[in-house]
Amino acid sequence: MVDILHKVGIKSSSPADVYKALTTLDGLSGWWTTTTTGDSSKVGGVIKFRFGNGGFDMKVRALEPDKHVLWEVVDGPVEWFGTKISWDIRQEGDWTIVFFKHMSWKEPVEFMHHCSTKWGVFLLSLKAMLETGKGEPWPNEIKLDSWEENRAAA
Amino acid sequence: MVDILHKVGIKSSSPADVYKALTTLDGLSGWWTTTTTGDSSKVGGVIKFRFGNGGFDMKVRALEPDKHVLWEVVDGPVEWFGTKISWDIRQEGDWTIVFFKHMSWKEPVEFMHHCSTKWGVFLLSLKAMLETGKGEPWPNEIKLDSWEENRAAA
Repeated sequence: MVDILHKVGIKSSSPADVYKALTTLDGLSGWWTTTTTGDSSKVGGVIKFRFGNGGFDMKVRALEPDKHVLWEVVDGPVEWFGTKISWDIRQEGDWTIVFFKHMSWKEPVEFMHHCSTKWGVFLLSLKAMLETGKGEPWPNEIKLDSWEENRAAA
Repeated sequence: MVDILHKVGIKSSSPADVYKALTTLDGLSGWWTTTTTGDSSKVGGVIKFRFGNGGFDMKVRALEPDKHVLWEVVDGPVEWFGTKISWDIRQEGDWTIVFFKHMSWKEPVEFMHHCSTKWGVFLLSLKAMLETGKGEPWPNEIKLDSWEENRAAA
């Protein structure tokens, strides 16, 4: 099992702002994908993230206000199925630090390389949303290959 | 042992352009850090990447023109010492795809989370340099915490 790990700091934000960006449809739509639906605010709720034709369904597995969010992938690409996505939030001075883990990939396949960089792109979008008021969610985020470019144009 | 993995596609580029960006001081200074010195173009050469007070020395371990570059960290933070950084380049239609691995971290420490996201920031700078002519190397890249912010201001 292998994990994607990231850490991003957001200046002049707060754990409450980050938690809101991860647990409300408004927040999630502002940095990840504009087509986010479902129930993001309760343990057991299912959030549907869509990117044109494809996407992911995440079941909310744990919520600790302003501290921790855990999702389990219950539908999506076969490589994602059963993986978990963990968010931990910590304040350090004027910076809110987000520790991110996309856990339990079976193998370090090429798609995992892609998703690692793509999570980086979206975490920088989360940072931009909270620092400037404007994120860069799908379909306007940075594209990493022709497949993504074509999907966004479809 | 754990690895940082990334994959980034660069539109309307070529394997030769990417290889040049990874093996010349001009190229490396354009996307990673403006203070890059040493010998980046020969196996056995040592490249010195500096970010204010700190930085990394990499020994070039392998070079296959337009295909592969391998560096070994011979000086730098203790967590980086002895790790290797591997670059593989592949053309897919109009996109040049770069597979990146920072291999053989002893433990998935917090600093590894940070470096994973930071590699993402610099890989997007490499992409921007080749797509637009202008990268965002240190000290002007996106900052991820107060430590980085202070180092760049020093």
